[in-house]
Amino acid sequence: MRYATFIHDGSQKVGAVSADGQSVTALPLTAAEAEIGVLALVTRQVQGQALPAPTGQAIALTQVRLMAPVPRPRRNIFCVGRNYQAHAKELAGSIFKGNNQPTDVWPMIFTKVPETVIGPFDTVQLPTGISDQVDYESELAIVIGQGGRNIRREDAMAHVWGYTIVNDVTARDVQTRHAQWHLGKSFDTFCPMGPWVVTADQMDGRDTRVRGWVNGELRQDASTQDMIFDIPSLIETCSRGITLRPGDIISTGTPAGVGMGRTPPTYLKTGDVVRIEIDGIGAIENRFA
Amino acid sequence: MRYATFIHDGSQKVGAVSADGQSVTALPLTAAEAEIGVLALVTRQVQGQALPAPTGQAIALTQVRLMAPVPRPRRNIFCVGRNYQAHAKELAGSIFKGNNQPTDVWPMIFTKVPETVIGPFDTVQLPTGISDQVDYESELAIVIGQGGRNIRREDAMAHVWGYTIVNDVTARDVQTRHAQWHLGKSFDTFCPMGPWVVTADQMDGRDTRVRGWVNGELRQDASTQDMIFDIPSLIETCSRGITLRPGDIISTGTPAGVGMGRTPPTYLKTGDVVRIEIDGIGAIENRFA
Repeated sequence: MRYATFIHDGSQKVGAVSADGQSVTALPLTAAEAEIGVLALVTRQVQGQALPAPTGQAIALTQVRLMAPVPRPRRNIFCVGRNYQAHAKELAGSIFKGNNQPTDVWPMIFTKVPETVIGPFDTVQLPTGISDQVDYESELAIVIGQGGRNIRREDAMAHVWGYTIVNDVTARDVQTRHAQWHLGKSFDTFCPMGPWVVTADQMDGRDTRVRGWVNGELRQDASTQDMIFDIPSLIETCSRGITLRPGDIISTGTPAGVGMGRTPPTYLKTGDVVRIEIDGIGAIENRFA
Repeated sequence: MRYATFIHDGSQKVGAVSADGQSVTALPLTAAEAEIGVLALVTRQVQGQALPAPTGQAIALTQVRLMAPVPRPRRNIFCVGRNYQAHAKELAGSIFKGNNQPTDVWPMIFTKVPETVIGPFDTVQLPTGISDQVDYESELAIVIGQGGRNIRREDAMAHVWGYTIVNDVTARDVQTRHAQWHLGKSFDTFCPMGPWVVTADQMDGRDTRVRGWVNGELRQDASTQDMIFDIPSLIETCSRGITLRPGDIISTGTPAGVGMGRTPPTYLKTGDVVRIEIDGIGAIENRFA
């Protein structure tokens, strides 16, 4: 199933997307549930409740405004750095300069504040005067269902509730100069997400294709099979001594092809449009202003 | 005023601590407010509401269990790395190895998950089998009142609602091996906080003394005047393009004297007790198990 959070007739709802991807039908939820979006469904399921069936009219997607499926995560988003070999290589002289650790021993985990999240077709605000090196990162993100601590990699996939798309927008100059990446990743509007969550029974995030375009030009194209740390390893790592919670989001890192890796590096400017597509999920497309 | 979150007679309350520090008197708040602790007072004040006067009986502090003043922050805690020169020096060959940036240009900001927070006298769980290099960091933390974006340093102190104490407990081996510090800082129970929040009209965090003891031995002793980035700079930096929210917590970094800086390095083990005292606030004391 694909579940979306959307606004229709002025109120926020959560709904199931039709098989043809043309319409959405709302689920009967309380107002408090609708406010937290798809997180409400995760919460119900981990409490052992069945999800309510969609009721009422199917609404054409053209008639709704899609929001991020989880419009406001309950804590910062876990993000993974340097998780594709080709990407590690393209930034070896910049972001990863001075980092002599082998790429395949321990993943790099940092966070973005929850308030970075915007909808799948919303506009990203360039932090003018603060950064002139804003870059895109096309990523598969997982939504945790059942939480847990010290989850073993062989059990990890059972903790994946679903998948969505994230653009881990990054201010390269800020990322680099502070050494720790949190600020350069956390500017307001720096986390477009969506267009919905595809539940884990519908696809396998370990084997899908991630592509990113800037103004129609294909820049990133890789299989999630090329991840250095696969999804089970990431869940095992993030839950080692740290209790993962239902609704936690782990964005799994970006393939090669970011702006900083180009010669010369090219960054996003006003009017640019970044589109990310992941097979089995769909696409998000965000203008930068 | 000093405001504490505490449990008495089985229910959580928020109260004002008496001038002699011996008792606490509850404020009349809704159950939902009491649940979020001192954050409820911050929220009321930034909405322009007066705080209710304490009502009822003063309760001896010996009769209550003090909780962290903000038991569950609304998003990850902002933390500052390498913010005292002597501390930068003591870890120059370990944590900061390979970081050739000057210490005084850009602060290092990372986060801890909200669920690390425990009470001022609660027990920290050593993540046995995951880390054998658990270390203490005595820190002054600020609680943000009025939020904002692009707060200028000359306006920053008006955004400080109050001060509390944080032990930024750290697994050094995990911190180092992942390059990004988030995981090594985020183990369950790794953020003792309290014993209460002292409001900003009662003290100036820019000029106070921070001390830390392990099993009664004084290990850390510095003035917050020795910070590389003072409180106004930190607020300016963290709010640059990132909207700070009421109740956000920024832990301002630790002075020299951590276990990793000793020769040879010494780490915390079962039964150790770490006490942190900050002049004008009080003390927290946590056993490691």
